[in-house]
Amino acid sequence: MKFKLQKESKNLSARAGEITTDHGKIETPIFMPVGTKATVKTLTNEELIQANAQIILGNTYHLYLRPGMEIMENAGGLHKFMNWNKPILTDSGGYQVYSLAKLREIVDNKITFRSHIDGSLHEFSPEKSINIQRTLGSDIIMAFDECTPYPCDYSYAKESLKRTHEWEKKSKEYFDNTNPHYSHSQALFGIIQGSTFDDLRYESVKYLTDLEFDGYAIGGLAVGEPKKIMYDLTNKVCEKLPKDSPRYLMGVGKPEDIIEAIANGVDMMDCVLPTRNARNGSLYSWQGRINIKNAKYKNDFNPIDSNCDCYTCKNHSRAYLNHLYRNQEITGLRLNTIHNIHFFLELTAKAREAILNDTFSDFYNNFFNNYHVEQDNYLNNLKNKENYKNKKKNN
Amino acid sequence: MKFKLQKESKNLSARAGEITTDHGKIETPIFMPVGTKATVKTLTNEELIQANAQIILGNTYHLYLRPGMEIMENAGGLHKFMNWNKPILTDSGGYQVYSLAKLREIVDNKITFRSHIDGSLHEFSPEKSINIQRTLGSDIIMAFDECTPYPCDYSYAKESLKRTHEWEKKSKEYFDNTNPHYSHSQALFGIIQGSTFDDLRYESVKYLTDLEFDGYAIGGLAVGEPKKIMYDLTNKVCEKLPKDSPRYLMGVGKPEDIIEAIANGVDMMDCVLPTRNARNGSLYSWQGRINIKNAKYKNDFNPIDSNCDCYTCKNHSRAYLNHLYRNQEITGLRLNTIHNIHFFLELTAKAREAILNDTFSDFYNNFFNNYHVEQDNYLNNLKNKENYKNKKKNN
Repeated sequence: MKFKLQKESKNLSARAGEITTDHGKIETPIFMPVGTKATVKTLTNEELIQANAQIILGNTYHLYLRPGMEIMENAGGLHKFMNWNKPILTDSGGYQVYSLAKLREIVDNKITFRSHIDGSLHEFSPEKSINIQRTLGSDIIMAFDECTPYPCDYSYAKESLKRTHEWEKKSKEYFDNTNPHYSHSQALFGIIQGSTFDDLRYESVKYLTDLEFDGYAIGGLAVGEPKKIMYDLTNKVCEKLPKDSPRYLMGVGKPEDIIEAIANGVDMMDCVLPTRNARNGSLYSWQGRINIKNAKYKNDFNPIDSNCDCYTCKNHSRAYLNHLYRNQEITGLRLNTIHNIHFFLELTAKAREAILNDTFSDFYNNFFNNYHVEQDNYLNNLKNKENYKNKKKNN
Repeated sequence: MKFKLQKESKNLSARAGEITTDHGKIETPIFMPVGTKATVKTLTNEELIQANAQIILGNTYHLYLRPGMEIMENAGGLHKFMNWNKPILTDSGGYQVYSLAKLREIVDNKITFRSHIDGSLHEFSPEKSINIQRTLGSDIIMAFDECTPYPCDYSYAKESLKRTHEWEKKSKEYFDNTNPHYSHSQALFGIIQGSTFDDLRYESVKYLTDLEFDGYAIGGLAVGEPKKIMYDLTNKVCEKLPKDSPRYLMGVGKPEDIIEAIANGVDMMDCVLPTRNARNGSLYSWQGRINIKNAKYKNDFNPIDSNCDCYTCKNHSRAYLNHLYRNQEITGLRLNTIHNIHFFLELTAKAREAILNDTFSDFYNNFFNNYHVEQDNYLNNLKNKENYKNKKKNN
């Protein structure tokens, strides 16, 4: 993998670059659609390519459990299994072990857990995670880390960071000592943790850049903290990161978060938001989000966005999408997803264009002048988390 | 609408023809995908066109309830509402009133019923059904009838046929006295009923052909009766029908039923089988049906059918489809549907080609030599019906 920094914005920290992998180039900044279980939900590869997707994500935890590594190895890796011939990034599996698996336990440098599907017992470690990602054959492998929740007290964040650093070092060593399983090369990204604490974040940047990864991700953000904290920390971390490596802000986000991330110097982002929200009837445009379920769209024969050139907007009305949604027709879930993925990719493509044209500040201001940003709902997030915990306790 | 008989098979009653509508031509024999609620489930129009779909069905009962006729009229009809620019056939709504609606009651020439969605009270009549189909703007309108169940005793079949004939006469009169709502013309098909009784069927043919419809459908078959009865009656009815009108066997069917129907002189068929079964993992090929859920496909990297040129077979393996199915991924339901619809349309296209080339007997024999026909399961159907009735009683 190679990264070429092509342009830096004058007033803001935004940058345009190009990542070259054996499966093709990625023009940054870029939004990466999430293909959790070897498919970006509801879409075909053809539709992803039509939306100008340049790289997609796969989830190590899910793919490890199903279809499992034997089938994946027989297929010749994830690219061949799903017939996606462009770059793939896989996560380390750690995040899902924390959010989905049951009865997890950390012993030494291993997490044992039970599958959320059938309760079977499994074990992840830095080495195991790299091994799985070798079998998946992703172009970009993520080091094994622990994603701290929000809120997180300083002592736990510090203890967790120590463990994460050990795990990432082991990931790097194991990666360096093993070879790809297939004919294409693979790169390894480190993940900066440290919760909301500046000193821990700086320590993490120092530790990981000393290990010299191919790229650096910022993890442990977009987990329910106030937006201001996310934006500030992204900015602070990016300022310390080497300019000649790609930067990836994990799990971000809403359109406004993506624009802020780019303004702060991030190159890559991923989120389930455009796909998940599409299936809930939430559709994005440069003006903001609309909910197609709303009765006012029943008789609205305009497209979602008359300036959008996605298949959905070129062919179908809000009235039709409202009808399909009310009937829970799969075709509707698809048409919604096609539109949202197209919009998120257009968002990063337009940002890139502005950076290259030295007009990113204008782009940034125009975006926030036109886009209806919804209230930062971190307090609601906290409440939902608390309810969820209580519900789990009661079960 | 015009129908041109292009060719008749020498040894069997199969025929090739061409129907011309204001939305384009339909080459018969043809399979018509079912677009119940203004979409063929999981598919886009683009995919239907890629599969060579020439005409689709819409369901009057469903579309009347949702989105409702006000929205449909505002949209400019069903073609515009769903942006499908090829021919559409709509049913009369009667069948769904019987199978889905609650508390239905026949008073004079009207059926009152309660919506299966919200319990609201509605009324269908021959005139109302034509009116709705005028609003939908379908190229082919079906007359209002009663579809008798199987088994059905002679006296009920006779009584029902009398009512059906009155309704169809009223349908024809109302159709003749009203105009299309949009700029394209509409045709009206009569529906031959009479359950499994030859004399009633013949009476129905006589009654309806005297009324001179644009085409004739055979209704009340494929409702659970033994296959032999369906094939024999189709043959007998087709022999009595005028050669210069299209013939439509409603709700048929499995690939072997479609081939038998064509051999007996049917021009048009529709069924939810390819779409519904796709969503259950049942996939068709010229060898028969496979179930993609089966564990033996987990490691099978061949396409469903290596001779098939649908998007699914050109791009994806059985192993991948098995994985998507096991994870209930919408992408899998789509890929399965794309394949099945392609296969059903290829089935009628190849039959037509054979008829035109005077090789239909060979085609027919080859089909049955290669295709694994599953056992006629009418006894199971009966049992299921009985169970269903008992279940309903107990609720």
